[in-house]
Amino acid sequence: MLGNEFLFGGDYNPDQWKDYPEILKEDMRLMKLAGCNLMSVGIFSWATLEPEEGVYDFSFLDSVMDRLAENGIGAALATPSAARPAWMSMKYPEVLRVNERFERIRHGQRHNHCYTSPVYRQKTAEINRRLAERYKDHPALKLWHVSNEYNGICYCDKCQEAFREWLKERYDGDLDKLNHAWWSTFWSHNYTDWSQIEPPSPMGENSVHGLVLDWKRFATHQTIDFYLEEVKVLKEITPDVPATANWYWLAQRELNYKEFSKYVDIIAWDEYPLWHSPAGDLAIANEAAFIYNHCRCFKEGQPFLLMESTPSNVSYRTANGLKRPGMAVTTGLQAIAHGADSVQYFQWRKSRGGMEKYHGAVVDHEGSENTRTFREVAELGGHLKELKEIKAARTHSDIAIVYDAESEWALSDCFGFKTHDLQYDETCFAHHLPFYRRGFNIDVISPEDDFSKYRLLILPMLHIMREETAERIAAFTEQGGTVVMTYISAYVNETDLCHLGGFPAGRLKEVFGIRNEEIDSMYDGVSLPIKMADGTVFGAKDYAEVLHLQGAEALAVYDRDYYAGTPCLTKNRYGKGCAYYIGFRDEGDFLDAFYGGLTEELGIAPAAEGLPEGVTAASRVKEGEEYIFLMNFTAEEKKVSTNHPVLLGKRKEDAVLLPPYGTAVLKRRDNK
Amino acid sequence: MLGNEFLFGGDYNPDQWKDYPEILKEDMRLMKLAGCNLMSVGIFSWATLEPEEGVYDFSFLDSVMDRLAENGIGAALATPSAARPAWMSMKYPEVLRVNERFERIRHGQRHNHCYTSPVYRQKTAEINRRLAERYKDHPALKLWHVSNEYNGICYCDKCQEAFREWLKERYDGDLDKLNHAWWSTFWSHNYTDWSQIEPPSPMGENSVHGLVLDWKRFATHQTIDFYLEEVKVLKEITPDVPATANWYWLAQRELNYKEFSKYVDIIAWDEYPLWHSPAGDLAIANEAAFIYNHCRCFKEGQPFLLMESTPSNVSYRTANGLKRPGMAVTTGLQAIAHGADSVQYFQWRKSRGGMEKYHGAVVDHEGSENTRTFREVAELGGHLKELKEIKAARTHSDIAIVYDAESEWALSDCFGFKTHDLQYDETCFAHHLPFYRRGFNIDVISPEDDFSKYRLLILPMLHIMREETAERIAAFTEQGGTVVMTYISAYVNETDLCHLGGFPAGRLKEVFGIRNEEIDSMYDGVSLPIKMADGTVFGAKDYAEVLHLQGAEALAVYDRDYYAGTPCLTKNRYGKGCAYYIGFRDEGDFLDAFYGGLTEELGIAPAAEGLPEGVTAASRVKEGEEYIFLMNFTAEEKKVSTNHPVLLGKRKEDAVLLPPYGTAVLKRRDNK
Amino acid sequence: MLGNEFLFGGDYNPDQWKDYPEILKEDMRLMKLAGCNLMSVGIFSWATLEPEEGVYDFSFLDSVMDRLAENGIGAALATPSAARPAWMSMKYPEVLRVNERFERIRHGQRHNHCYTSPVYRQKTAEINRRLAERYKDHPALKLWHVSNEYNGICYCDKCQEAFREWLKERYDGDLDKLNHAWWSTFWSHNYTDWSQIEPPSPMGENSVHGLVLDWKRFATHQTIDFYLEEVKVLKEITPDVPATANWYWLAQRELNYKEFSKYVDIIAWDEYPLWHSPAGDLAIANEAAFIYNHCRCFKEGQPFLLMESTPSNVSYRTANGLKRPGMAVTTGLQAIAHGADSVQYFQWRKSRGGMEKYHGAVVDHEGSENTRTFREVAELGGHLKELKEIKAARTHSDIAIVYDAESEWALSDCFGFKTHDLQYDETCFAHHLPFYRRGFNIDVISPEDDFSKYRLLILPMLHIMREETAERIAAFTEQGGTVVMTYISAYVNETDLCHLGGFPAGRLKEVFGIRNEEIDSMYDGVSLPIKMADGTVFGAKDYAEVLHLQGAEALAVYDRDYYAGTPCLTKNRYGKGCAYYIGFRDEGDFLDAFYGGLTEELGIAPAAEGLPEGVTAASRVKEGEEYIFLMNFTAEEKKVSTNHPVLLGKRKEDAVLLPPYGTAVLKRRDNK
Repeated sequence: MLGNEFLFGGDYNPDQWKDYPEILKEDMRLMKLAGCNLMSVGIFSWATLEPEEGVYDFSFLDSVMDRLAENGIGAALATPSAARPAWMSMKYPEVLRVNERFERIRHGQRHNHCYTSPVYRQKTAEINRRLAERYKDHPALKLWHVSNEYNGICYCDKCQEAFREWLKERYDGDLDKLNHAWWSTFWSHNYTDWSQIEPPSPMGENSVHGLVLDWKRFATHQTIDFYLEEVKVLKEITPDVPATANWYWLAQRELNYKEFSKYVDIIAWDEYPLWHSPAGDLAIANEAAFIYNHCRCFKEGQPFLLMESTPSNVSYRTANGLKRPGMAVTTGLQAIAHGADSVQYFQWRKSRGGMEKYHGAVVDHEGSENTRTFREVAELGGHLKELKEIKAARTHSDIAIVYDAESEWALSDCFGFKTHDLQYDETCFAHHLPFYRRGFNIDVISPEDDFSKYRLLILPMLHIMREETAERIAAFTEQGGTVVMTYISAYVNETDLCHLGGFPAGRLKEVFGIRNEEIDSMYDGVSLPIKMADGTVFGAKDYAEVLHLQGAEALAVYDRDYYAGTPCLTKNRYGKGCAYYIGFRDEGDFLDAFYGGLTEELGIAPAAEGLPEGVTAASRVKEGEEYIFLMNFTAEEKKVSTNHPVLLGKRKEDAVLLPPYGTAVLKRRDNK
Repeated sequence: MLGNEFLFGGDYNPDQWKDYPEILKEDMRLMKLAGCNLMSVGIFSWATLEPEEGVYDFSFLDSVMDRLAENGIGAALATPSAARPAWMSMKYPEVLRVNERFERIRHGQRHNHCYTSPVYRQKTAEINRRLAERYKDHPALKLWHVSNEYNGICYCDKCQEAFREWLKERYDGDLDKLNHAWWSTFWSHNYTDWSQIEPPSPMGENSVHGLVLDWKRFATHQTIDFYLEEVKVLKEITPDVPATANWYWLAQRELNYKEFSKYVDIIAWDEYPLWHSPAGDLAIANEAAFIYNHCRCFKEGQPFLLMESTPSNVSYRTANGLKRPGMAVTTGLQAIAHGADSVQYFQWRKSRGGMEKYHGAVVDHEGSENTRTFREVAELGGHLKELKEIKAARTHSDIAIVYDAESEWALSDCFGFKTHDLQYDETCFAHHLPFYRRGFNIDVISPEDDFSKYRLLILPMLHIMREETAERIAAFTEQGGTVVMTYISAYVNETDLCHLGGFPAGRLKEVFGIRNEEIDSMYDGVSLPIKMADGTVFGAKDYAEVLHLQGAEALAVYDRDYYAGTPCLTKNRYGKGCAYYIGFRDEGDFLDAFYGGLTEELGIAPAAEGLPEGVTAASRVKEGEEYIFLMNFTAEEKKVSTNHPVLLGKRKEDAVLLPPYGTAVLKRRDNK
Repeated sequence: MLGNEFLFGGDYNPDQWKDYPEILKEDMRLMKLAGCNLMSVGIFSWATLEPEEGVYDFSFLDSVMDRLAENGIGAALATPSAARPAWMSMKYPEVLRVNERFERIRHGQRHNHCYTSPVYRQKTAEINRRLAERYKDHPALKLWHVSNEYNGICYCDKCQEAFREWLKERYDGDLDKLNHAWWSTFWSHNYTDWSQIEPPSPMGENSVHGLVLDWKRFATHQTIDFYLEEVKVLKEITPDVPATANWYWLAQRELNYKEFSKYVDIIAWDEYPLWHSPAGDLAIANEAAFIYNHCRCFKEGQPFLLMESTPSNVSYRTANGLKRPGMAVTTGLQAIAHGADSVQYFQWRKSRGGMEKYHGAVVDHEGSENTRTFREVAELGGHLKELKEIKAARTHSDIAIVYDAESEWALSDCFGFKTHDLQYDETCFAHHLPFYRRGFNIDVISPEDDFSKYRLLILPMLHIMREETAERIAAFTEQGGTVVMTYISAYVNETDLCHLGGFPAGRLKEVFGIRNEEIDSMYDGVSLPIKMADGTVFGAKDYAEVLHLQGAEALAVYDRDYYAGTPCLTKNRYGKGCAYYIGFRDEGDFLDAFYGGLTEELGIAPAAEGLPEGVTAASRVKEGEEYIFLMNFTAEEKKVSTNHPVLLGKRKEDAVLLPPYGTAVLKRRDNK
């Protein structure tokens, strides 16, 4: 994919420097110095390319593309739909998004067009066509970078009408079916005509949860539909150039990326972890790793692109601290370790004005290579060249955590439990951490993915449980798998209707050998002791489900309150496999001990053994070789014992040395 | 009223289960098992009853009513105005409320119609007429449950016009009178034409406090007017069926319930205390008791209905914890102890979808009687039958606390003191607690109520002081009563104009024998010592009024800052009575000690003596018998010495045992 | 200016008391008792003066003016534009402001007219003309109090059009120039037609920082333009009556007061420090002093008017505490000490209704002189008469701190560093405190002011650096001045474009002998040690710039993290002068020690030596005499040694005694 080397570069906005020819020239020198081979260009260039309606001027972009090609650098050429020229907003207000209060916004900012607007679709198709035609044979063109961080929902009449059409199809034109699915009799919300359906809004309906779920599904659908229309013309003209859309998870939770992933050629991700924030670097590394592990699994292990990251600071945090020395290298290699085939930065050069002028960049306002950031970026550029044999390598994992975008939607909109702070993502991260800090490879998959290739399957707060998912969980266990499920899982179906007959839903009661009578929610700061069979005590917080054994055995019980002595951790033999249920939220150490024991019991091995605290590992395999990345997320030097050859890093006797925030790469024959 | 037994049941929404006949059937079995005798039906049924404009379909409701009757269960039949069918919002946008920013909302949610809209009034009257005609002779019909939790204000042109008409009447068509009452010369706000008056709004005028008060008075007026129009048709057809409107105080502070109480046949209340939250259960029980004591006094002691409560958790709190074992029984009996003749639940059965699906219910999604909640509800059902002789009993109290909805309005809108957190309600609760925890019966009355039947009258922060109220306070004291008044009382008149000549207003300076020169407000966390004549030191917080004695004696003085040594607690003989003034806000223990001493001095006796910490008491009297409820709001077993017969509970030698969160009922001859 | 005595009085609203003739009469007695000689009248009188369009009624104002004159009291006669009559809003909606969401507000509140509206300008001119003509020869008329606290921005189409015209002029009609200045290529925001430019708004464009800066500049321009139109007619008719506009800094940060100051005859200021709040009185006194020092420097030392202040409490704080005894006198004299020639209060008498009825006043609702507040006000009135020889005295200072309204704009809108809490004002206050608590006179000037008359020039966070300012800083230093500059200074030009070539910009790198490679931002609570050459350790917080010496010497280095050992405080000889650079934010004691040493080294003397903690000093000079104000901002009595004659206060042997919160005034021959 895209050559034999790791891709390295970033967002490049020469449009901003048209009046500074010496800077445009200097950019080329500096890119080569840093080892760049792919730059994203044109992301916000529409106003430059089409200064008046129908008047196109590609001369500047021509010069940029030519200069890149001359210097042996590829272009991820963007379609410019992420921001429009002002003339378009003025002449065609329909391209402007309508917000959730049903107000049409005015021109400005970015990422805020209507996805349904025929005008916007036609204008986008036209500029895309011209770009594709002009550069189809250009040697710099490597990748289509379609739009930027697709984001948000429009509430205009056209979008509403499209939503109603989408619903008609989804519910077979049967309003009764929709009314039942949304339980709309509640508060007399029954619809008697399709035209009565409006999107959820603080100005109107916001109490029909099935509507909210379907509205988010529609938003995903419509965004993909817009993407496909953007891509259609590109594929006609440049069938061999891959196309992708860079996603920014934090900004756009309305999108179901699993769904979207089916339509892009390559997964591309923008990732901005809050390094050096009070959460602590290991916890932050864990979140980043979780996300990379998820990215890798969208397309069954296919390597993805880290499409944006910062070489130093960002500009929107409470405190925009700098990456410590070493971190630019290690955070880049972390993405590679988990399956990325690129490290791309936002941004190549700091802009002089505007709201991102203080966002980290490879090249500072100062303008030279004489900065710590530039030196570290260039160092990483060098390492990526040295490590190029790893490119396209895959990852093997016995463990899968299931992450479900739709459960996140359902829980974030939920009244009940600890309204509205259910911490779905945090819980998934917490179940990832015990494996991560021990250096296990972990897959983060979606409910629809194949479970059968794993040995250990983890279902944290899998609130939405479709019948077919439950069947596959049962089958997985029956055939010898080990499954772990938690509180608040399997309560509702895909339109947020509670399962009748008790939780967990249906057959899962047999799989886990329990039923869950009720769930207690605790205030922040309340700690509930739970006692293991051997007398060890851990702390629970937030949630305590009152469980009844129906075949399972209790591994731990609550140790206070009216449910003292009742089971909170259970184990059930089911077929050839085993099903664990955790009825409470871990306050701190329980999950670590539990999963530590479980992997030992199951004999699942990490990518590297004997890691010191704060050092993690991940590996990729290719052609019989396993490449092990050891990453030090502490400010101290660390040592890891190993006899494997060291591909990157400093060996010292029987060990490899990891400088503060440093990374080493080992190589061994793959045993799997 | 409504038979000889306590009423027991809850909100029943069979409309949601039309497609589940086995569940509809099971409901009847379970209701009888739980001891239910009254279910609220039809609250949100409009879309079912009138699926198209003018097309009525009562067949499903017929079957529900019949089934209830067949099973010996009564119906509190609701008028459906709390939520409209979608077709009505689409065809007649005028029924949709306009918010305080003058934006018309869209269809959705509930409790959000315009109270003035002729269309909405006509449609409501029509459906009500048809309901009344159809079920006037139905054996199940026991009570009209009119709408649901009337709530909020509409800012549409029609409401504005009605407001102006209401003002014309209130101010005798004299704009000068209104201008003076609202002090509108301030900031040049003088009105020169009635049409210039608009409701208070963040988009326009919000600095005229007299306007704010009158706008809230109008909202109460218009809500009552709407209620009366709903009821008119019901009374024509079913003159003998009582009508009520269930109120939910927390959601609807714009309403003056004292005013509304004059128009309903029975007081009906929805109460959701935050049990087991960090405030502590005794404090929470105190608030609930305060509110029940208030409900009972709306109609001079007439028993009220607890129309909604939860059997376990709610769904909108920060942490939706479960009621501990015993609490479903004790919280139900608490309402009875303070004068309720019913315990009704929201909700009978958890809905499958929508925003209240995780709200506690008698029947869970699981569907059977095999839950702790169901068992406890059924236990309470049994107790209510055993205790039926108490039904319709009254309460005797020597102590009254005055609660004034209009002072709450004035203080919540106030600039000054500790803007905008004046804690009026909390202060009233704090003055209730010392009596409550000692087991006194307390009346919570309104300023317009008769004071003469009490021995001790308490006026916490009675900010609005009408001349006639002041006169009645003076007369009460003169004739031998004991009155206690606090800081920030008697500052303004009924249109929020400050009284001239010094605080407290007018004749009250004589009654209390003091004048109040100025008031200091302290930041949170500041503690000011006050010293009693005997040297005891208590803590003040928030407010310190600088008082001058004009006849009164000082019982305590401030002990720091420039007002050190000046009086902060005063006592004045006035006529045959006695007037105490408290110039500061109690930080913790002062009120308890003060009221403890005062009741002792006055020889007022509690409902029960010698209560252990966390156990409270309240009593009702009927036909010469006094029924004493002992309620344990702790997680420990408690013992109360008594020789009275035990009607409910376990006697052990000379005492009755109260299990954790348990209740006992004693019976003795009434001495009063 | 305005007679030989200090001006004393306040906002007087007799319009509110038209129906209370006894109160209007009593006012005169009380004003004389308090020593008042100037009252502001008519501020919100428009509805009284023009009750119907074109119908004027000055009879009541006539009587007020006459009564003032009869009692020897002058009038600061207001133009009434700060609030309109309701009829005007109804008939001419264009006078109503449009908010930043492009919604036109409704009638109500105050300070919210459109500054561009031709109708509003014409109506204002007309009422002003009539006021001027009627009272031009009235003996009470002393000063034009134009409008009140000009405030806010309007977003209506007329204002937008005026903005575009203003831009055309500013950018020579050249859109390219504007596009470059605003760096609008960022996110494709290039403008291709002037009509595309809209003000910054959350509903549209808010990411173009140059636009934001220019919009605020335009707001200042348009406010001044409106002011000039108000004043034009006054000056025609009463050329000898000075005109001013009272400013309220906290409410109106959109205005650049330095710019506005060029157009008023006298500076007039409303100041409401948060006395006795948790920040501590010395810190609060420091902020007030900073602001007074700034007011005095707007017009090169010309005395200003304290136009509003409170004699006791305000009404909008979290806790509206009372001024402690002594504070009414001392806070009034503080303004005088720093260059005011008046002490005016808001408000003379508490209104009965409306949102300021609990705001402190000279006369309380009680109505008499028998209040502590009245007595203290009258005491101050007496002192001002005794001190009248000080009137018109000037201030001498060797030290200047540069405060830049435009840098505050740029930083408050900034993404980066510690978004969006950059604490520009707090930082300026922190650099003022070390001088203030030692009793130095300090000038607070603007970047455009003359630096050459100072010996020490301090530039805290001077983010915007124009080339000509940098040149004057260089010249100041070269010629022997000492300059101190901090982190985040000199990053951008006047349209918020980052300087290229490294920070600090251009020649300043030579002046300070350093370059700044990168800046680290720290979370709240993080403390970074810095070590002085002598080993002393101080704490830094928030910001740490990584500096490289280019000629300067390091006086201190960071003592932790990757930049440990690198310079954080530098000193550079430049020409005959010296330039210090501070790369970090002081956590506590550093600035105090640093500036303490620096003034000693430079031999700059304070207004008074040997001040006890919490006592400060400031002085004014006139005709060879220096008047030294000693102010005690503690609750304890303090003693200051002195042999100078005591003009106000109590001498005890070789010292003057300062009671709690008390002030003394000394007199000595001026040596400068």
